[in-house]
Amino acid sequence: MVELGLISLRALQLPRLLILCFFVILGNFHKAEARIRHYIWEAKYEFRSPDCFKKLVITINGKTPGPSIQAQEGDTIIVQVNNSLVTENLSIHWHGIRQIGTPWFDGTEGVTQCPILPGDTFIYQFVVDRPGTYLYHAHYGMQREAGLYGMMRVAPRDPEPFAYDLDRSIILNDWYHSSTYEQAAGLSSIPFRWVGEPQSLLIHGKGIFNCSKSPSLSTDVCDASKCSPFVQTVIPGKTYRLRIASLTALSALSFQIEGHNMTVVEADGHYVEPFVVKKLFIYSGETYSVTVKSDQDPSRNYWITSNVVSRNRSTPAGLGMFNYYPNHPKRSPPTVPPSPPAWDDVEPRLAQSFSIKARQGYIHKPPTTSDRVIVLLNTQNNISEYRHWSVNNVSFTLPHTPYLIALKENINGAFDSTSPPDGYDFANYDIFSVASNANATSSSGIYRLKFNTTVDIILQNANTMTKTNSETHPWHLHGHDFWVLGYGKGKFDVNNDTKKYNLENPIMKNTVPVHPFGWTALRFRTDNPGVWAFHCHIESHFYMGMGVVFEEGVERVGKLPSSIMGCGQTRGFHGP
Amino acid sequence: MVELGLISLRALQLPRLLILCFFVILGNFHKAEARIRHYIWEAKYEFRSPDCFKKLVITINGKTPGPSIQAQEGDTIIVQVNNSLVTENLSIHWHGIRQIGTPWFDGTEGVTQCPILPGDTFIYQFVVDRPGTYLYHAHYGMQREAGLYGMMRVAPRDPEPFAYDLDRSIILNDWYHSSTYEQAAGLSSIPFRWVGEPQSLLIHGKGIFNCSKSPSLSTDVCDASKCSPFVQTVIPGKTYRLRIASLTALSALSFQIEGHNMTVVEADGHYVEPFVVKKLFIYSGETYSVTVKSDQDPSRNYWITSNVVSRNRSTPAGLGMFNYYPNHPKRSPPTVPPSPPAWDDVEPRLAQSFSIKARQGYIHKPPTTSDRVIVLLNTQNNISEYRHWSVNNVSFTLPHTPYLIALKENINGAFDSTSPPDGYDFANYDIFSVASNANATSSSGIYRLKFNTTVDIILQNANTMTKTNSETHPWHLHGHDFWVLGYGKGKFDVNNDTKKYNLENPIMKNTVPVHPFGWTALRFRTDNPGVWAFHCHIESHFYMGMGVVFEEGVERVGKLPSSIMGCGQTRGFHGP
Repeated sequence: MVELGLISLRALQLPRLLILCFFVILGNFHKAEARIRHYIWEAKYEFRSPDCFKKLVITINGKTPGPSIQAQEGDTIIVQVNNSLVTENLSIHWHGIRQIGTPWFDGTEGVTQCPILPGDTFIYQFVVDRPGTYLYHAHYGMQREAGLYGMMRVAPRDPEPFAYDLDRSIILNDWYHSSTYEQAAGLSSIPFRWVGEPQSLLIHGKGIFNCSKSPSLSTDVCDASKCSPFVQTVIPGKTYRLRIASLTALSALSFQIEGHNMTVVEADGHYVEPFVVKKLFIYSGETYSVTVKSDQDPSRNYWITSNVVSRNRSTPAGLGMFNYYPNHPKRSPPTVPPSPPAWDDVEPRLAQSFSIKARQGYIHKPPTTSDRVIVLLNTQNNISEYRHWSVNNVSFTLPHTPYLIALKENINGAFDSTSPPDGYDFANYDIFSVASNANATSSSGIYRLKFNTTVDIILQNANTMTKTNSETHPWHLHGHDFWVLGYGKGKFDVNNDTKKYNLENPIMKNTVPVHPFGWTALRFRTDNPGVWAFHCHIESHFYMGMGVVFEEGVERVGKLPSSIMGCGQTRGFHGP
Repeated sequence: MVELGLISLRALQLPRLLILCFFVILGNFHKAEARIRHYIWEAKYEFRSPDCFKKLVITINGKTPGPSIQAQEGDTIIVQVNNSLVTENLSIHWHGIRQIGTPWFDGTEGVTQCPILPGDTFIYQFVVDRPGTYLYHAHYGMQREAGLYGMMRVAPRDPEPFAYDLDRSIILNDWYHSSTYEQAAGLSSIPFRWVGEPQSLLIHGKGIFNCSKSPSLSTDVCDASKCSPFVQTVIPGKTYRLRIASLTALSALSFQIEGHNMTVVEADGHYVEPFVVKKLFIYSGETYSVTVKSDQDPSRNYWITSNVVSRNRSTPAGLGMFNYYPNHPKRSPPTVPPSPPAWDDVEPRLAQSFSIKARQGYIHKPPTTSDRVIVLLNTQNNISEYRHWSVNNVSFTLPHTPYLIALKENINGAFDSTSPPDGYDFANYDIFSVASNANATSSSGIYRLKFNTTVDIILQNANTMTKTNSETHPWHLHGHDFWVLGYGKGKFDVNNDTKKYNLENPIMKNTVPVHPFGWTALRFRTDNPGVWAFHCHIESHFYMGMGVVFEEGVERVGKLPSSIMGCGQTRGFHGP
């Protein structure tokens, strides 16, 4: 498959593209420089050994991570996806793109579209209306873990408030040797079979699993010559913008470049009031830009490390090379890799969360009050002997008819009509104890939000089914950025904690952690007609029900393209 | 999910079922005893250890092999399939059922229907119009190998021409520890990655892999306590009808019950002029009934064995127990299991093929001449560096719009309009040499057959890409039984070999082997309007292109149910 990259408008000959262009030109008449960027992607299962262990991965045009999308603010992205997975469907989510006016191209199977069948071609088309660092990845079952992911970089029209010489991208990931099928089947089994800790950590698709520690594996399966560490070559004295993103299946990470400070300047597409870190904590679904100066002794290389935090890690550190040119890129640093932070020390992670504020001059002030407050208690529990995650005692299940189509086309019975509750039994629930949550149920019910109102979401963490254990959950909202109003420890107190909200310079994000035994408060405007998932970005947690769905202004959504239809009760709604 | 089994007509309350019943009653008015048998099946990935090695399998209602369908001649079978495979589609073929009047329920993805999406329910409905032993299995990608298969037994209205006390079923299979995804990706790779020999042979879902020979496997993966041999308990002095079927992915088999003769009485639903064997050769897709008398020393048990033939076997014998009651079913026989036949001795296999003739009194005479002769040369070759199997230098590829729908609904461009050739370069092709077959192409072109005519098919075997090697290919025809007119060695000679055709008492079958370096001649009537696959039943061979498709009388096909539509160019053709 060919990646066409940028196509000049003059060169377009195909009638369909001409029609597309026509509308794009209409829509962007005032933006003379807006371009169409057209990609043709083939998704396919292939054998790869990203960490020396050979397994099947889903590639895009032969690659995992897939090709990077590089565009400019206001451009239209057209991605033609050909599904060559033989028997498996797919869908691709454009993570961080709000899809204003195109909620049907959010790529969330069961929420905004039907899956793309093997042999079929699906065309995503949307405008990247804001500069920043975004991602794309599969959003169907646990397919993201199979390797279908990549980065989107959107350059701004206006000058940026920080300087750098070179711009580089690093996606962090964790990596399992079992297949997504094995993992999903285990999670859906009685007895429950947990996915366990990942076998390695990848830095932009490269990791190192120690084959010699598993001598039983044949060299056909595990071959130490088949992988090598990630290398970031730098020219001494330059300033690098590193776009660091995490798409881990499970792990919260601490990222570090030995001996170098990182200045955080962007988070999820928003400029951050700069602050300096030695270790960057990053959660699945988050993107950051940091600036790093290659101002250390240029006669050697330095370690890049990625380490699991918030779980009692058994996965070795992900190691890469910060390679000062002209040293050999494989020349090991003379030092041992820097130690990771204590896995269970929440304080520095909480401190980093507090540090992330909107940059002066780029502050979007939040509304000072909200119209509705929804408190979402995150718990783990059993329902009919199956292990689940639940939110306010409701474990989310996806319907087979996507919500967006069901709601827009008035299809009855496509999902549970009862909305999940706006809160939990605040007075009596002890978030520090193992609770049976005996009333927990599974449901596809959603929250219907009044259009053009302000909604607060309080993510309330709690004890899992293991004594004195609470996990970190990175929650990701589709179709929106939200203001991060605050974080806290313990049980959120609606009377007092709201007084500590940051209404001055809160950062806007699309993904935010709720820390162990803590809470996180968000605010957003229901100003984007559509149906939007909001869920824990840990692949297994969402699969186990840790998510909700918001509907807002669906009556204002334009005519749905028939290409998103064809499944569940929308069979027959998809023209050939 | 509940298997409802037999529902009496009086008990039906549901409106849909009532409507179904109404038509069934109309259609079977003269057959007072015809019944509707309604099954509800859930297909799901689950962990199972059929041979002690734990892997993901596709179960139906928790089982593999799936539930047996037991019906009477003339009954209507309704199977409601719920796809719970999360991200994978499916389809189910009713192997040996001709689907007269219901070609859309043949279950062949890409030929007669679109795949069934995860979360969707598909209802197969067809009449089992002939008594006999049939099968069902997945017919999508290489999904059959994942364990989605089972047996169908159709009892006759009239007395059978052989006597037995008890009726038992045994499906033989071979078993791989790698997933169908891994196998398919390997076959589609450059360099080509062959699936290799199976790890074990299963007898009705039970096999024994020797975990102790792979000490590197943890007991979680390979646990010798998790499997046990198949046991057929028999009462001394009784006559058993054993329905023996093969659904191997690759292997031709020799089946044996130590110390017992087997009298072959049925093949693929047709009565056979009885003959006695000690070893039954059986090829993937075939079914046989044999009668066996438990007339040996009842103080001991006897081995049941299944062994690979026609390939230089590395797979250990499949072992089961022919258990004389009241001996303990696990008590080993005092003997060693009987030796298998030499893997490369074609003679006894050819001899068995010649032995299978229609039973006196049950002979359907074939037409004495044919209207068209199609010679199909089976070769292995490379196309664009990919390894393929080809037929007359054409490697078959499935289209994404099923043929039946494309042809019936006049959808243009759904598949290659050029038909593959009716023969090969007979004069110059040396079937005993490795040939480059440089002109081989991939195509979705099909054979259009004139309705109500007689067609002869000559399957011509040849050398593979390995010197002095030719394999056994069991070819299976959908929608028909064919007369088996003859087998021969070497190159089929249209002038002389036709004179040796058996036109007196040829057996009718739906699956037949073409032996190494040999040919097999078939005849059938194009009297079943529809579109029918004809292909090698070896899963990897069909995946690699070893098949053709026949269309006959498609203009006579009734209104297609919209449930088979929704993919390729039939998007939008499927009502909700």
